[in-house]
Amino acid sequence: MRYTVLKTEGLAKRAVMETVHGTIQTPVFMNVGTVAAIKGAVSTEDLERIGTQVQLSNTYHLHVRPGDEVVRALGGLHRFMSWQRPILTDSGGFQVFSLAGLRKIKEEGVTFQSHIDGHRIFMGPEESIKIQSNLGSTIAMAFDECPPALAEREYVLPSVERTTRWLERCIARLKELNSLPDTVNREQLLFGINQGAVYTDIRIEHAKRISEFDLPGYAVGGLAVGESHEQMYHVLDETVPFLPKDKPVYLMGVGTPANILEAVDRGVDFFDCVYPTRNGRHAHMYTKHGKLNLMNARYEKDDRPIEEGCGCPACQRYSRAYIRHLLKAKEMLGMRLGVLHNLYFYNHLMEEIRDALDEGRFASFKKERLASMAEEKETCG
Amino acid sequence: MRYTVLKTEGLAKRAVMETVHGTIQTPVFMNVGTVAAIKGAVSTEDLERIGTQVQLSNTYHLHVRPGDEVVRALGGLHRFMSWQRPILTDSGGFQVFSLAGLRKIKEEGVTFQSHIDGHRIFMGPEESIKIQSNLGSTIAMAFDECPPALAEREYVLPSVERTTRWLERCIARLKELNSLPDTVNREQLLFGINQGAVYTDIRIEHAKRISEFDLPGYAVGGLAVGESHEQMYHVLDETVPFLPKDKPVYLMGVGTPANILEAVDRGVDFFDCVYPTRNGRHAHMYTKHGKLNLMNARYEKDDRPIEEGCGCPACQRYSRAYIRHLLKAKEMLGMRLGVLHNLYFYNHLMEEIRDALDEGRFASFKKERLASMAEEKETCG
Repeated sequence: MRYTVLKTEGLAKRAVMETVHGTIQTPVFMNVGTVAAIKGAVSTEDLERIGTQVQLSNTYHLHVRPGDEVVRALGGLHRFMSWQRPILTDSGGFQVFSLAGLRKIKEEGVTFQSHIDGHRIFMGPEESIKIQSNLGSTIAMAFDECPPALAEREYVLPSVERTTRWLERCIARLKELNSLPDTVNREQLLFGINQGAVYTDIRIEHAKRISEFDLPGYAVGGLAVGESHEQMYHVLDETVPFLPKDKPVYLMGVGTPANILEAVDRGVDFFDCVYPTRNGRHAHMYTKHGKLNLMNARYEKDDRPIEEGCGCPACQRYSRAYIRHLLKAKEMLGMRLGVLHNLYFYNHLMEEIRDALDEGRFASFKKERLASMAEEKETCG
Repeated sequence: MRYTVLKTEGLAKRAVMETVHGTIQTPVFMNVGTVAAIKGAVSTEDLERIGTQVQLSNTYHLHVRPGDEVVRALGGLHRFMSWQRPILTDSGGFQVFSLAGLRKIKEEGVTFQSHIDGHRIFMGPEESIKIQSNLGSTIAMAFDECPPALAEREYVLPSVERTTRWLERCIARLKELNSLPDTVNREQLLFGINQGAVYTDIRIEHAKRISEFDLPGYAVGGLAVGESHEQMYHVLDETVPFLPKDKPVYLMGVGTPANILEAVDRGVDFFDCVYPTRNGRHAHMYTKHGKLNLMNARYEKDDRPIEEGCGCPACQRYSRAYIRHLLKAKEMLGMRLGVLHNLYFYNHLMEEIRDALDEGRFASFKKERLASMAEEKETCG
């Protein structure tokens, strides 16, 4: 793997990352395919068409169904879902702490109940890495605890210290697995994760500590889970400078177009978020001028595309009136078209951000775009 | 409109029908898009890709949502759903008699309750034709009563007589509407519908009577609603010879691949059925060797396509194991891929039938295919 910063503007970086599954132009938005599929009937063929660079899948979900051993037997996640470009897998930690039933955290790892059938599962750093190795993703994430953003300081500090110890175990386990001849992807990369809730002193100490491991990339985790946008930006302001400058930074689970613009400005390279897919399934469509709600009666006879000039498969062919009708009739096709539009919007936004950085005009692009979105808030349904 | 029989083999016809929206090669399977969308997140763009010639939409559904006046205001159904090839609309009769709530049949028409919000709707021949004219379909269907296949003779006879009187009113109303300058499709065609349940003497009398109107096409309705396959074939054997030889024959709502092979052999040109879409959403996949149920555990690690050699978008890229996983995880993408496969299968079957007729080998094709499907019944899960 090679990560090359092509250009900077303030803290914002325009970079390129080369992996065994191809090149990633950053800043990049990763499209979330939780169970090896994008919700809303979007296939990997569609992802290629709308310009997706990286697909993100969830370790926990794939472990419980169809099982990572099944995916491994089928040649790994790339082959299973027919996607040859980079894939990032999360560690399962977030789902274990947010989705799974009753859980018990120990130094070894976490025992919890499957959200599918309630059976007991144990997952620690070694298990998470083994699952991700079976999936054969391009980038694996370290197994961490993600404490709530507003958790007490007394809870957060020992949790973060344990996350550091877990990171060391993840590194050791991945090294072992990558050296085995029958490992799906022996070039699998590991990103470490910074935690610390909103306590910037804990965040900074942790960022320094994990930076010592010289990993191919670092994530900022535990944001967008209850704190305000201002708190999120403040954490980034304080923390990102203590992560290595020559490595990509991934802001996990973030966020709105405005969040992305602000975070790029603070040095972030990678993003992922369920907003575009979730909103697309619920008639909330992104445009340069803010979101519009297609359920609004004003769109009943509106034969314009969701956004004039948009190059997505929905806007190229279908009207607001038609997609609105489909969504009202609860036809899956309405959700599919909405998700295709929103994912295209996010991927295209990143392309516009990269172009602006290439041309040294990111600051003005960010300003204009934020102003245009705010303006529409008052005029859009 | 021009209908030209290119070739015959026994009663089977290979024909071509020219319409204002393009040419239809028959025998043809019409893909069912009830509310102007194919269930399973399949778009008109997909339909073009899988070789669909005719799309069928439902008058009743579109009348209640989004409303045929809305569709008319948007330029008609072709423009609304972005489909430039032929569209057939049913008359609404079948849904009124099967779906809608409490209903009252009079000579003028039927009063019933919307299945969406229970509001009272009146629909007679003039209303049905007006709605279909607003939709601007290529082919409109006459408003009829569809009595249950096993209804008493005493019920069926007066019902069929009323259906004939309704047909005359449909013809008159369509003539008026097609002569108005602002009608969406002034070349709209009307097919009459033969009824009579399983009473072949009633069917024959009715076929003779409606043939006198010299319509551009005729349907056999009220089959595949409770009678046996043998009864259906018997009705076709007895009735089709009394419909005009130089007009297309449409067997409504039928059926399985075997039904289609048998009906083509009896002179039928047009088919429609929800089986491929419904089965595709429920993991039942058509193959040359019969249906397979992807939920079966034997497919868990099966990385072959649904059918080897199939040219559909699902088989070109995805495995049984992957689609099975999606369906088990209730991901819409699984349903989409299943529906795309099954619709491709049906469209491709019709192509194979047309090729066989072109080459004078339909009888042997039919025999082989029926044998191959029966064989697989025992080996396929």
